[in-house]
Amino acid sequence: MITAVCLNPAVDKTYRVFSLQPGRIHRVERVEACPGGKGINVAKVLKRLGLDIRVTGFIGGGAGDALLRGLDRWDIPHRMVRIPGETRTCLNILEEVRRTQTEFLEPGPAVPPKKWEALKETVAEMAEKSRVVVLSGSLPPGLAADAYYELISLVQSRRAKAIVDTGGAPLARALEARPFTVKPNGAEMASLFQREEMSDSERIGVLREWNRGGIPLACVTLGERGAIASMEGRVYRVIPPKIEAVNPVGSGDAFAAGLAAGLDRGEGIESALALAAASAASNALHLQAGQVNAEQVASLKRKVHVAILSP
Amino acid sequence: MITAVCLNPAVDKTYRVFSLQPGRIHRVERVEACPGGKGINVAKVLKRLGLDIRVTGFIGGGAGDALLRGLDRWDIPHRMVRIPGETRTCLNILEEVRRTQTEFLEPGPAVPPKKWEALKETVAEMAEKSRVVVLSGSLPPGLAADAYYELISLVQSRRAKAIVDTGGAPLARALEARPFTVKPNGAEMASLFQREEMSDSERIGVLREWNRGGIPLACVTLGERGAIASMEGRVYRVIPPKIEAVNPVGSGDAFAAGLAAGLDRGEGIESALALAAASAASNALHLQAGQVNAEQVASLKRKVHVAILSP
Repeated sequence: MITAVCLNPAVDKTYRVFSLQPGRIHRVERVEACPGGKGINVAKVLKRLGLDIRVTGFIGGGAGDALLRGLDRWDIPHRMVRIPGETRTCLNILEEVRRTQTEFLEPGPAVPPKKWEALKETVAEMAEKSRVVVLSGSLPPGLAADAYYELISLVQSRRAKAIVDTGGAPLARALEARPFTVKPNGAEMASLFQREEMSDSERIGVLREWNRGGIPLACVTLGERGAIASMEGRVYRVIPPKIEAVNPVGSGDAFAAGLAAGLDRGEGIESALALAAASAASNALHLQAGQVNAEQVASLKRKVHVAILSP
Repeated sequence: MITAVCLNPAVDKTYRVFSLQPGRIHRVERVEACPGGKGINVAKVLKRLGLDIRVTGFIGGGAGDALLRGLDRWDIPHRMVRIPGETRTCLNILEEVRRTQTEFLEPGPAVPPKKWEALKETVAEMAEKSRVVVLSGSLPPGLAADAYYELISLVQSRRAKAIVDTGGAPLARALEARPFTVKPNGAEMASLFQREEMSDSERIGVLREWNRGGIPLACVTLGERGAIASMEGRVYRVIPPKIEAVNPVGSGDAFAAGLAAGLDRGEGIESALALAAASAASNALHLQAGQVNAEQVASLKRKVHVAILSP
C-alpha cells in the first residue's frame, strides 16, 4: 500500500472565459471543480496506475465535503482529519482568446495543534500498512516548518519509505530527517541556496551531498528536460520522450507518483525513474493535472532513456 | 413581515491581490466570503433597517451550507429549498495597485421541476404572512422566463404586494403579471426596448405605460442620479444626497429594500421613495453590498429630495 499525505488540499476550480479583462464583470458559462493539491494529484496518478493507494490530510467545511465526494467518485480511499474553516479553492481561469492560464491560490485554513496531533496519529497508523508514504506540497497555516521532519521520522520508524516533494523551509528541515527520497524541482532546489539558476553539475553536487547526508535516493526534476537522480554513488540522467505537452501542471506530482509506484513494487532504480518520467509525460499530455493513462504510461516508459552519468 | 426571494443566491467571495496579471499565479493572502445575490442583499438591508424579514430561494451542496451559516450569523431567518449541485460563487478580485474590481459570476446549478414546485409552495406559504414580497435578481438555469410571472400571481392572490427587480425576458414576462412595483435600473429598462440609452422623458413614458398596464408603482433607478417613479398619475424625481461613494455595488438592491420597508410600514409614496434612496446612498458608503447603517439611513433620508414632476 502507498499513503499519500496532502496537508493543504484544495478544490481545484476552473473557469473558462473568452477574454480576461481586469476591471470587468465576467459571466462564467462553465465551472469545473475537482479535488486538487499536490498530494491529491499523486494519489490520482497512483490510482490510475492501478496501485493500492490511501490519502490523508486536512479538510474543512462544505468545500471539504465536496473534496471527499470527489475522492469517492475517483474511488480513492481517504482518512482525512477535519479542521475548522473551509478547505481552500485554487482557481484557474482559462482564457480562450489569448490562451492564458491565470491562477489564484488561497492559503487554506489554519491547523489547530490538536488536529496536527490527530494527523500524526493517522499517518503513523497508515504507515504501519504502507511500503511507501509520499509527502507532497506546501504546509497549511498553523504548522511549523518541521512538519515534514516529524512525519518522515514517524513514517520511517515504521519501516515505510518516505518520498518528499516540497520546497523552501519545509524541504530544508525535511532533509535533516533523512527521507528515503526527496524530489524538488529545479527552482525549489536553487532557492534552497538563494540562487536563481543552477547548472547541472552544481545540481549533481547537491544530490551527492544529500546522499552523503543520509538520503538514499536524491532527485531533481527539470520539466521537459526530465530529471537527474543520484543513488549509491551513481548519477542518473532521466531523458523523457519528446511529446507535444497539452498542460504540464501536475507533472512533478506524477513523477513523484511514478517513483512511489516503482519503489512500492520493488523495481530497480532505473525502472522506477523511467516509470516516473513516463507518468510525468502522460500527465503533460492531458488537460487535467493527475489525469494519466496506464497504457500510455507503459508505452511512454519504453521511450524514456535513463543514462548513467558516472559509475 | 417581508419575504425576500432569491432564486439564484451566491457565496460572494473576495480576493485581495496586489496586482492582477493575466497568465500568472497569484497567492491570495486573504479570502472573504459571505452570502450574496440580489435577494440576499435585500434581506440584509431590511434586517439592518430593523424589519421583520424572511428569505427563501434555492441552495445546494457545501457552498449552500456555508450560505445558510452566513444567514444565521446575520440573524436572517430562512426557508431555502435544497437542490442538487453546488450554490454558485461570485468572485470579486480587488486589485490594490490599480484599484480595479474584476468579477466572475458563476451560472448556478439547474433547478429541477419538482424543486420549482416546492419553492412555489414555500413562497405561497410565506406570502400568506407577508405584506410585501421582494423578487430580485437573475433566474437560475432550469427555470422558464415566466418564473417571476408565476410567483407574482401566487403572491398577489394572497394580498401581499410584489416588488420585482430584474431585467431581460424575466422582467418582460413579470410586467404582464401586474406586480405592485417594478424597479429595473436604467440599463435594464433600455434593454427591454433594445436600446443603449434612453432620455428621462422616454423613461417617464415607459413608467406611465406600465402604470396603465396595471402596475401601481413603476420605478427606474439611475445610479448616483437617483430614480424616477410614477404612481397614480404623478411622476416623482428622487434626488439623492451628494455622497462620496465607496462602493455602489448593491445600491439597487438597497433601493428595493427601502421601498419594501416603506410599503411594509404603510408609509406614503414620497416617504417610501426617500427611504429607498437613503438606503441606496448608505449602501454606497460601505465597502460591502447590503451593509447599510440604520442611523445613517435616517439621517440621509432627510437629505433626499423627492420632486413631483407632474400632477
